[in-house]
Amino acid sequence: MTATRPPADPAGVFDWLDVRSAARARAGLTRRLRPRAATTGALDLASNDYLGLARHPLVRAAAADAAHRWGAGATGSRLVTGSTELHAELEDELAAFCGVEAALVFSSGWAANLGALAALSGPGTLVVADESNHASLIDGCRLARGETEVVPHADPTAVRAALADRTRRRALVVTDAVFSVDGDLAPLAELAGAAREHGAGLVVDDAHGLGVVGEGGRGSVAAAGLAGAPDVVVTTTLSKSLGAQGGAVLGPRRVIDHLVDTARSFIFDTGLAPAAAAGALAALRLVRERPELPGRARAVARELAARLRAAGLTASEPAAAVVSVRAPSPGEAVDWAAACRAEEVAVGCFRPPSVPDRFSRLRLTARADLTPAEIDRAVEVVARTAPAAAVGR
Amino acid sequence: MTATRPPADPAGVFDWLDVRSAARARAGLTRRLRPRAATTGALDLASNDYLGLARHPLVRAAAADAAHRWGAGATGSRLVTGSTELHAELEDELAAFCGVEAALVFSSGWAANLGALAALSGPGTLVVADESNHASLIDGCRLARGETEVVPHADPTAVRAALADRTRRRALVVTDAVFSVDGDLAPLAELAGAAREHGAGLVVDDAHGLGVVGEGGRGSVAAAGLAGAPDVVVTTTLSKSLGAQGGAVLGPRRVIDHLVDTARSFIFDTGLAPAAAAGALAALRLVRERPELPGRARAVARELAARLRAAGLTASEPAAAVVSVRAPSPGEAVDWAAACRAEEVAVGCFRPPSVPDRFSRLRLTARADLTPAEIDRAVEVVARTAPAAAVGR
Repeated sequence: MTATRPPADPAGVFDWLDVRSAARARAGLTRRLRPRAATTGALDLASNDYLGLARHPLVRAAAADAAHRWGAGATGSRLVTGSTELHAELEDELAAFCGVEAALVFSSGWAANLGALAALSGPGTLVVADESNHASLIDGCRLARGETEVVPHADPTAVRAALADRTRRRALVVTDAVFSVDGDLAPLAELAGAAREHGAGLVVDDAHGLGVVGEGGRGSVAAAGLAGAPDVVVTTTLSKSLGAQGGAVLGPRRVIDHLVDTARSFIFDTGLAPAAAAGALAALRLVRERPELPGRARAVARELAARLRAAGLTASEPAAAVVSVRAPSPGEAVDWAAACRAEEVAVGCFRPPSVPDRFSRLRLTARADLTPAEIDRAVEVVARTAPAAAVGR
Repeated sequence: MTATRPPADPAGVFDWLDVRSAARARAGLTRRLRPRAATTGALDLASNDYLGLARHPLVRAAAADAAHRWGAGATGSRLVTGSTELHAELEDELAAFCGVEAALVFSSGWAANLGALAALSGPGTLVVADESNHASLIDGCRLARGETEVVPHADPTAVRAALADRTRRRALVVTDAVFSVDGDLAPLAELAGAAREHGAGLVVDDAHGLGVVGEGGRGSVAAAGLAGAPDVVVTTTLSKSLGAQGGAVLGPRRVIDHLVDTARSFIFDTGLAPAAAAGALAALRLVRERPELPGRARAVARELAARLRAAGLTASEPAAAVVSVRAPSPGEAVDWAAACRAEEVAVGCFRPPSVPDRFSRLRLTARADLTPAEIDRAVEVVARTAPAAAVGR
C-alpha cells in the first residue's frame, strides 16, 4: 500500500468530514438536534416512555429527593465510591420483579450490552446474532473479540445450524426481545430450545419489553417461560418503561458476579447517578402497583397500528408498544415527521443507519396513558400528512 | 479445529464462570460492591469529586429542580426526544469554557470516547494510542475497526515514528491528558507537534483534567495552548470535577456535527437524564465563579504526595488531583484499603486489570475542600496502616 500524506496544515486534518457531510446531505441523512422545552403542547408519540412514568409525580419526586440526599452524581465507579444503597435496592427489586437471581445496574442500556457481551464471550466463543439486533448488541459483539455469525431475522433454524457448525467450544445466542424499529417479538422459546440443543447460552435484550410485555410487565423472557433459567441472561434499560436513565443485566448470580469482576463498561464507568436510580426504582414500584399499565400500552399500540392500516398506510403489527409506519424515502420520512410536528404531534423518524433494512420509517410509540382523543388526533394527523407514495403500498 | 461440545444441560452453560471466579480469587482479584449510605462519617479520598461539587447545595438543588421540571429521564435518544434545552445550554457553556467551537453531551465519558473514536477513524485510519490509555479509549480503538498502534507511555518520539511509518492515509493520536491511575500529565504540546508534522488529528481524554488543570480549570488542552485548535478533539466527563454524570466531546463544529450524524453511542443511546445535565451545568458555573478551586485541588494533591513520600511510601508526583501509592501485591492493596476504611478513611484500591502495569496501588484523590485537619488524618492513617513491604521501596 502506498502512503499518501495529507498536508500538514492542522486546519485540513478534518476536511474529510465535510466531504462525508455533503454526501449525507445529498442522501437525506443529515441529522439535527431539536432541544425541547420542559413543557410543550405537543402530543408525544416519539419517546420511549411507554408507561408515561418519566413525568409521574412520584417518579419525579423520588429522583429529586435522591439528588438532594446523595448529590448530583455517584462520584466514582461502582467498585470505588459509585455504589449507593439506592443501587443495591434497585438491583434487588429488579431481580425479584423479573424472577432472576441477581441484577447489576449500568449507566446505560448501551453499557449493559457492551459489558455483558464482552464479558460473557471472548476468543473461545461463537456469538450467533440476529441480523436486526440493536446497535449496542452489534458493538458488543465487536468488542467480544470472538467470532460472530449473523443469522437471518427471527430464525431459530438458522441459529441451530450456526451452533451445530461451530468450531468454538462455547456459544451465545444474542437477540433483541422486542426489535426497536418494528416492534416485533423474537421467538424466544424457540431460540432457547435451539441454544439448549447445542449447549449455548441465550442473551436477550429486553429494553422494549420490560414493563410492557408479559404478565404485569415482567418482560419478554418471563412471557416466554424463561424467567430464572440458568442459561439465560437478560439485558435491559431503565430509560424506557422505567422513565429514568441507565441499564441493567439480569440473570444467574454467577453471571452477575462475573460482570462485577470483569465487565469493562461496569468497572471503568462512573456509577449511575442516584437520581436516575431512584427514579427507576419509583417507576418499578408503580408498575408493580398498577399491573394493568403494560396491557394498556400494548392495546394502544395495536389500535394505532390497525387504524393507520385502515387509512392505507403500511404499519407493523406491534407485539409491544412500538408501531412503525413505512415511508417512501429518507427525505419523505423527514418531511412527514416535520409535518406531524408542525401539527403538534411528535413522532420518531428512523432512517439508515438506524433501520435494519433500507426503508425509512416513522416510529410511533404507544403510551399507556394516551387518551382516546389523543389516539384519534394522532391517527388523523399521521394519516393526513402522509406522502402520497406511503398510502396503499 | 475440532469441536468439543459441552453438555446440553442448561445448568452447565455458565459453569466456566466458576472456574474463572476461582482463579481470580486465588490471584486476589475478586471485586465486591460495597453500597454506601447517603451520609457516612468516612473521609472521602476515593471519589473523583475533585472540587467537592457533587454535594454542593447549588448543584444538588439544580439536579433536583431539573428532575421536578423535566422528569426522571430524557425519554429517548438525543435525536428523537432526548435533547432538552438543558442539554443545549450545557453544551454551549462547556464549549465556551473550554474555548472550542462546539460540544456534544453523551450519557457517560465512556460513551463519549467510544463514539468519538469510532466516528473519527475507521478502516482508512491509523490510531496511535498511548499504552496507558483508559479502558474506554482502548475499547474505542477496538470499535474503530481501523489499525491501532500502541506506543510507549508519554513518548512523542514513538508517536512520530508510528505516524511516519503508516500505510493508512489518515491518522489520529489518542491519549489521556491526566492518566487516571498515576495522575501524570501527557506531553500534549509535543504530541500535538508530532501529530501536525504528519497530518494527524489529536484526541485527548481530559476526564481528570477538566476543572483541575489549567487556568481556572479550563483543562489540560487549554493549559497546553491547544484550546480551539482545528485538529484537536477533547473528550471529557461530567462525573468528576463537575460532580454529576455524563460525558462530552469538545472540538471544531464540523467534528461535533459529524458525531451527531454518525456516532453510534450517541445516536443509539438514551439522552443524559435532565437532572445530571442540570447538575453538571450548575457545577460548571461554580467553577467559573470560583477559579481558585482547581489550584487548591492540585495543591492538596501535591501535599498529600509529599507527606506520604516523607513517610517512606512510594507516591506518584501529581499533575492534577490524583495521587497513587504503590502496594506490594493485590492482596496487600485490598487489606491496606480495608484497614484505612476501618479507620473511616475511604481510599481507592486499583488492581489488575485497572492498572497500566502489574502493580496494585492505593489511589487517593485530593479534593479542593479538604481541610488541613483532614489532610493530616489521611496521611496519618494511610502511613500507619501501610504493609511493611510498602515502606522504603
